[in-house]
Amino acid sequence: MKRVALLAVVRLAAFEPAPKLDLAGVIAAAPASDWVAFDQTDLLYMTLADGNRVVIALAPAFAPNMVANIKRLTTARWFDAISINRVQDNYVVQWGDPTEKKSLPPGMAATLAPEWERADAGLALTPVPGADGYAPAAAYADAAWPVARDPKGGRAWLVHCYGMVGVGRDNAADSGSGAELYAVIGASPRGLDLNVVLVGRVVEGIERLSALPRGTLPLGFYATPAKRVPIRTVRLGTDLSPAEQLQLETLRAGTPTFAALVEARANRREPFFVTPTGHVDLCNVRPPVRRRVGSAGQP
Amino acid sequence: MKRVALLAVVRLAAFEPAPKLDLAGVIAAAPASDWVAFDQTDLLYMTLADGNRVVIALAPAFAPNMVANIKRLTTARWFDAISINRVQDNYVVQWGDPTEKKSLPPGMAATLAPEWERADAGLALTPVPGADGYAPAAAYADAAWPVARDPKGGRAWLVHCYGMVGVGRDNAADSGSGAELYAVIGASPRGLDLNVVLVGRVVEGIERLSALPRGTLPLGFYATPAKRVPIRTVRLGTDLSPAEQLQLETLRAGTPTFAALVEARANRREPFFVTPTGHVDLCNVRPPVRRRVGSAGQP
Repeated sequence: MKRVALLAVVRLAAFEPAPKLDLAGVIAAAPASDWVAFDQTDLLYMTLADGNRVVIALAPAFAPNMVANIKRLTTARWFDAISINRVQDNYVVQWGDPTEKKSLPPGMAATLAPEWERADAGLALTPVPGADGYAPAAAYADAAWPVARDPKGGRAWLVHCYGMVGVGRDNAADSGSGAELYAVIGASPRGLDLNVVLVGRVVEGIERLSALPRGTLPLGFYATPAKRVPIRTVRLGTDLSPAEQLQLETLRAGTPTFAALVEARANRREPFFVTPTGHVDLCNVRPPVRRRVGSAGQP
Repeated sequence: MKRVALLAVVRLAAFEPAPKLDLAGVIAAAPASDWVAFDQTDLLYMTLADGNRVVIALAPAFAPNMVANIKRLTTARWFDAISINRVQDNYVVQWGDPTEKKSLPPGMAATLAPEWERADAGLALTPVPGADGYAPAAAYADAAWPVARDPKGGRAWLVHCYGMVGVGRDNAADSGSGAELYAVIGASPRGLDLNVVLVGRVVEGIERLSALPRGTLPLGFYATPAKRVPIRTVRLGTDLSPAEQLQLETLRAGTPTFAALVEARANRREPFFVTPTGHVDLCNVRPPVRRRVGSAGQP
């Protein structure tokens, strides 16, 4: 009996695929090389009046000119002492200059040609299989950016998942400068894809935006200036001391780990789940973000 | 010239389709008969400690036994003085007895066979065209319930859109009684479809749940009893005075108006939109709910 059992084990190891993991298992099994750190030069730290921080990872690979504008506004301290003016339930939180009269830094463009999509060549991609509805294909790219794709046209674009950050504008497509920003706090408003420039996503502290009181005017604007939520400062990570920085990382797309994450989300193996869906939509993959193991970043 | 112009108008009226409307236009053009009122016997009024109310429409046509349990718990005043114990960002707000020791009303079943789906015969349906991803087909049914469908099998089931209300349970599929409920407050967690019994949706006051502080323990449970949000009372509309009732109505599925609503969501005509998506996912149709015109319901 012992010999037979041993043979069985050998056969399993040689020929059987590894057992599929649940979500926690996929994350626990990820080698260090499958985590990718956000560069401090692409992290925006927004400190609210109560001292709590919201950290946004910018996406210069998707909207280089708009991200450059936002970094310029940040280093000019243009965002300091503006406010959150609009919180619309199941939609967005939006911040900017409520007077709409604050001058932009000298020489900065007040409008930018829309950066709605890019070539998908050069992106490390993990497909999200199955129908997307809004686009021919869906995937995650690089540092876990949710993208829709047109593989025939060779184009990819960021999409409106929960926590994504975009640029407010007027009706003209080129009317956004980056001085007015919003974050998604509801069911993925994918109808905004290819209509608004997405520039990043909240990687820590989204609950400091999503739990804000909703505005009572149309579009969720606050009814009185007193209800607005002041923003104390916005800083790039590179302008902070190491003690103030957060060392954040996410799973790298294009790795076996990321493919396993998507698979584990589509086929939940936790004992709670009874009916397998066999599918996950792009925005529900929810790639993890963690503070880097051993990092000293303060809360 | 005048005669020619007149002829042109006649031809337009006879042969041209009506111009397609935007969202506001569809709602403004809806005849009174395309609005359907929620019956007070199916409205659950949950009053929080601060006096604000959340109103939930129950769906007895989809989960008759579970809805009967919830009504029984309500009339027994079982929900009074329980609390919201869990607020998980981008997922759910959940309420129930935090001690998990409060006795159910006498004779009430503590477990119920899961009512996850029903026959789709008898439902007034408006399809949501295009790929759903999670199901062969998607539609709205009756009083604007979002449903996934398996037309070959003749089955339909409620899905996890923003604001939908479901029944908490343990790992056993039949372990929910209706005494523990949750509402969706994030990107539609469709992976829960056919895994949890959905019993209704929030039709007024969802922002009183979605803007609550997030819990800091795993799954969003509050760290201390003091952080829980007390529920003062839960009442059926039929147990309230007319002055306390809200007269709420929504668009009726299966009508030309509802089809126009879906179309207008998929093809946004407002001047802000530049790139048409030509698609809307089931949960982003967001059918309107309004207080009935001329109703005296208090805020």
